[in-house]
Amino acid sequence: MKRRIYLNMKELHEAKSLLLERFGPGDLVGEEEILSRKSGGRVTSCPVFARFSSPGFHSAAMDGFAVVAEETFGARDDAPVSLRIGVDAISVNTGFPMPEGKNAVVMIEQCLIDSSRKNVLLRNPVFPWQNVRKVGEDIVATELVFPTNHLLAPYDIGALIASGNSTVKVWKRPVVRIIPTGSELFDLEKEPDVDLSTGRIPESNSAVLGAMAEACGAVALRVPIVVDEPDAIETAIVDAIQSGAHVILVNAGSSAGSADYTVSVIEKLGTVLVHGITIMPGKPTIIGIIEGKPVIGIPGYPVSAIMAFDQIVAPLLHRLQGREAPKRQVTSAILSKSLPSRAGIEEFRRVVAGRVGENVVASPIKKGAGSITTITKANGILRIPLESEGLTEGSEVEIELLRPWHSLEKTLICIGSHDLCLDLVADFLKRSSPAIEMASTHVGSLGGIHAVAHKRCHLAGTHLLDPDDGSYNVSYVKRYVKCPALLINLVHRQQGLMVKKGNPKGIKGFEDLVREDVTFVNRQKGSGTRVLLDYELSRQMVPSDQIKGYEDEEYTHMAVAVSVLSGKADVGLGILSAARALGLDFIPVVEERYDLLILKEHMEYPPVRMLFDCISSHEFKQAVANLGGYDTRDTGRVMFECHG
Amino acid sequence: MKRRIYLNMKELHEAKSLLLERFGPGDLVGEEEILSRKSGGRVTSCPVFARFSSPGFHSAAMDGFAVVAEETFGARDDAPVSLRIGVDAISVNTGFPMPEGKNAVVMIEQCLIDSSRKNVLLRNPVFPWQNVRKVGEDIVATELVFPTNHLLAPYDIGALIASGNSTVKVWKRPVVRIIPTGSELFDLEKEPDVDLSTGRIPESNSAVLGAMAEACGAVALRVPIVVDEPDAIETAIVDAIQSGAHVILVNAGSSAGSADYTVSVIEKLGTVLVHGITIMPGKPTIIGIIEGKPVIGIPGYPVSAIMAFDQIVAPLLHRLQGREAPKRQVTSAILSKSLPSRAGIEEFRRVVAGRVGENVVASPIKKGAGSITTITKANGILRIPLESEGLTEGSEVEIELLRPWHSLEKTLICIGSHDLCLDLVADFLKRSSPAIEMASTHVGSLGGIHAVAHKRCHLAGTHLLDPDDGSYNVSYVKRYVKCPALLINLVHRQQGLMVKKGNPKGIKGFEDLVREDVTFVNRQKGSGTRVLLDYELSRQMVPSDQIKGYEDEEYTHMAVAVSVLSGKADVGLGILSAARALGLDFIPVVEERYDLLILKEHMEYPPVRMLFDCISSHEFKQAVANLGGYDTRDTGRVMFECHG
Repeated sequence: MKRRIYLNMKELHEAKSLLLERFGPGDLVGEEEILSRKSGGRVTSCPVFARFSSPGFHSAAMDGFAVVAEETFGARDDAPVSLRIGVDAISVNTGFPMPEGKNAVVMIEQCLIDSSRKNVLLRNPVFPWQNVRKVGEDIVATELVFPTNHLLAPYDIGALIASGNSTVKVWKRPVVRIIPTGSELFDLEKEPDVDLSTGRIPESNSAVLGAMAEACGAVALRVPIVVDEPDAIETAIVDAIQSGAHVILVNAGSSAGSADYTVSVIEKLGTVLVHGITIMPGKPTIIGIIEGKPVIGIPGYPVSAIMAFDQIVAPLLHRLQGREAPKRQVTSAILSKSLPSRAGIEEFRRVVAGRVGENVVASPIKKGAGSITTITKANGILRIPLESEGLTEGSEVEIELLRPWHSLEKTLICIGSHDLCLDLVADFLKRSSPAIEMASTHVGSLGGIHAVAHKRCHLAGTHLLDPDDGSYNVSYVKRYVKCPALLINLVHRQQGLMVKKGNPKGIKGFEDLVREDVTFVNRQKGSGTRVLLDYELSRQMVPSDQIKGYEDEEYTHMAVAVSVLSGKADVGLGILSAARALGLDFIPVVEERYDLLILKEHMEYPPVRMLFDCISSHEFKQAVANLGGYDTRDTGRVMFECHG
Repeated sequence: MKRRIYLNMKELHEAKSLLLERFGPGDLVGEEEILSRKSGGRVTSCPVFARFSSPGFHSAAMDGFAVVAEETFGARDDAPVSLRIGVDAISVNTGFPMPEGKNAVVMIEQCLIDSSRKNVLLRNPVFPWQNVRKVGEDIVATELVFPTNHLLAPYDIGALIASGNSTVKVWKRPVVRIIPTGSELFDLEKEPDVDLSTGRIPESNSAVLGAMAEACGAVALRVPIVVDEPDAIETAIVDAIQSGAHVILVNAGSSAGSADYTVSVIEKLGTVLVHGITIMPGKPTIIGIIEGKPVIGIPGYPVSAIMAFDQIVAPLLHRLQGREAPKRQVTSAILSKSLPSRAGIEEFRRVVAGRVGENVVASPIKKGAGSITTITKANGILRIPLESEGLTEGSEVEIELLRPWHSLEKTLICIGSHDLCLDLVADFLKRSSPAIEMASTHVGSLGGIHAVAHKRCHLAGTHLLDPDDGSYNVSYVKRYVKCPALLINLVHRQQGLMVKKGNPKGIKGFEDLVREDVTFVNRQKGSGTRVLLDYELSRQMVPSDQIKGYEDEEYTHMAVAVSVLSGKADVGLGILSAARALGLDFIPVVEERYDLLILKEHMEYPPVRMLFDCISSHEFKQAVANLGGYDTRDTGRVMFECHG
């Protein structure tokens, strides 16, 4: 097995300047002349001078009569000046050219027209040029309207046209050619119903990179998927160079694995400036130059690809267009849990941030760069610097925001156990008010109770059974929450036995688990579902030591379902949605209570109020009922009030 | 003359809610199904659920060997476990499906391959599922991927495709039909060389409104210019309603003048909800409804049109698409001069803001809504509330930013006298660094010295002659500036006599101004040019009381030039660029010194350093020389050091 190493590992700032220093505004792309009307968002490639003055003539700035100012001097209430309409006083509207010889406008409101309608009486004088817009008052012909490298806002188009420029020279949009590589990939648009279990993956990075490139003002062109073979990759890169594209992205094969050919192909065709950047996600990034054009090897994991684009390609695309890469807004926030980090790597942790009471709180999402949802569910990025060995819970950190700053004030943070009904809540909330963002992170019920108690979130979903008395949640809240709080029911839900479609083993309840021909798969100790299982086994007097597979633990409902689907086990305990996700049969065996825990001090936060309005609505309960496996008899009801 | 009144004047918030309350997400426009790959920036019209799990199979999370974890248990340095390659240990790369029966991956770095290349030696055990990405680790089939009304970011496309959604349902883009009206308007693209002095105006608002609508995600369609006749306007509106457009903008005729027909046409065809909003610019706005569709009368002055769109139309377009209108970033700033305001009107003053030392300072630009440059030169908006009668110099105000917040740290504020060479500086700076914004406001030399002295700007252009000794600028700086400061020369420039093309009166110098057949036009008392004139007249012993037109004063170089062009005067004193702008002849008569004044404490501000590097460069001096009328012998030289 041939292994490569990272040829030329660099820190981010160094990698970036190695690339950016080579290119300035307009390099590679050049300029073009376009209609001013279509120039919003483009960048001038040379200074723009006024061809016309604006206004181009002296004009009335008010509706009224154009007069010779000197003829109104001396006008008073008791000695009005009378002017002949059409001779001494010419009726004008705002914007009309000043009639020859007139040098002021009397506002219509200050004119009295006599009964003959032939004369106008003025009780006040006007001074010369009063209420007149003079030639060039706004723009003087020949003056600079915009400098080079000016990013044209929509309203700038008004100044272009007013100054006589119906066209404007701008830097061309860079053309980015995106080459997806990978023998396991397929095009979902062409094959919408592929069986993924054979190891195939829908190719998504090229669409993301294309959309990101377009958001930078570039034109993105994606070629069909290329197989993982050096010759095929070489052909695709050579084609791209010859196609006239300005920047080429090869995704992926940029790491140092045995099938990672990108770096050797770039090396063969040109120069590798950087192979490997000390960031995570995004480490296996390649920066190469072939025939003077940047060829970037983008890592394959979706979040690595996004970060590599964001940190390396986006600044390049902006620079070629002569503009500053936009910076994300930042906010300081309290970190909700400690984050260890490896010194020598700059980490970009995705977080969910929102205002919780006095503070903005940032909760890290799990790390995996292979999980696209670690960024789609995030609203911020926390950079852990190269030299840091981690950050401590409760410390103040700086967050780069992925959404507008004001959305922080409308973000509802929910940390705890997850249930499908929370997704329903999120959808209901956003349907009634698009501004509301509901951000959920799943750490289990007990983790959620701790997060609420420490004011790290607005609310938590919890379904913790107390085996001593069979009650739900209350005893845990009493033990851990020291401020006034409410437990409000979201739903009662069915836990059940998940079995293969058609239930070939004819399993009906817990008593079947001890059968000789039945293999069980368990959840880990301490999970809500495990607590529930042990409670029910003991209540129904089913001996756990006679259950085959009782020691075999999985960590999620879904992993249990997968074990059943793959035949590793015949049955496991879990919720309906997991069974449905994999097409398993579901035998409801016990109902559990799923509540929302919230501190009283957050009850007046508008998104929280909206949430409780939402779950109390008939429409919501109806939608829950339609999901199946739920009961809404207590939904929205306060189950327990904690006085702290 | 028939006058109308504002039918239904409202405050802004009221006008806005009268319109917005009628429409929710997707109203008027409906939904469409589009390719996920093209959905960046669009808004979901229904919840998106996962069709696939991601990953869709158990896969290797590392390059290495897939093994049965249990077979590695007990492996130690001194007792490695040996596994047969291809049987017990299968070579896998990251992302490969796990081979049947294997449940963990040993990283390649921890494998020792024996010399026969048939066995791999492991010195450490792995636990079950270590280095394996399990089915559904990222996304579980059936789960909610995005709620309704979710604004899709480019990276969200990754989650859509990974979850098996090659298409997505989104709200359609609203179609905005823009009807420019006005008999004086012409289409610059069709008639690029119209003689404006006949009272014609290039139509620019429809292009601005179109670009603003597109920036809100709408599709903009502009129809040809409609003449100011009620029937023509009615036909255009009826056409627009029938065309399938969702929102119709009529520009202008929305005021209450005798030729403002828009309101009566809307009234005839539908309902007028609002006529007149208590904002400035933007007062003559109409909000109407015809056949259920919003028909907005947009005022004619360019900045009024922009404000009416920004405050009324933009929120509507965002709302129809199910998303929040983006809010501008705000900053607090020190107001550089007092602003009187009329109670009962909410004013939107355009300002230039930037960091000057410790503070962000905001300098208001002149008011005229007819001047597009009052917004194109601005980088912020200062709202003066309805009830306010004005704001005082030095007070802290809140500015809504038109550019990204970080540009404030790279904005160079220049307040004082203007010279064409400052435009050249702006262009040079932005050419070498697109991030730099140079913001100039022109208040004359003395105003500039005061602004520098009060730390309201970074630098000022000044050309003030001291008539006592013929020196420039120094005596004024000594008098008014109380901190250490430098006067650095920008240029020496020619003032000259501007005369009609071909110099029909044969004017050669100041001595000709007293000729019987020559009429002069003067500058106002206190201007640098007037000080210079009087100094030169006295030095050359030309009696000013014998100059015809000496009492006739204009306020700008350009106004003097216009007087000469129009034949009102034969000659005036001014700078070459004003003469060139209107095609006048120019007879240089005297050289004056034009310096930049700057406080020493600002010399280390990076944009200031760049400015001085720029003006000291050979390229800059060459470019100045090419303009004509300038001398660069002292350019960049410190002329005076003030110790404060």
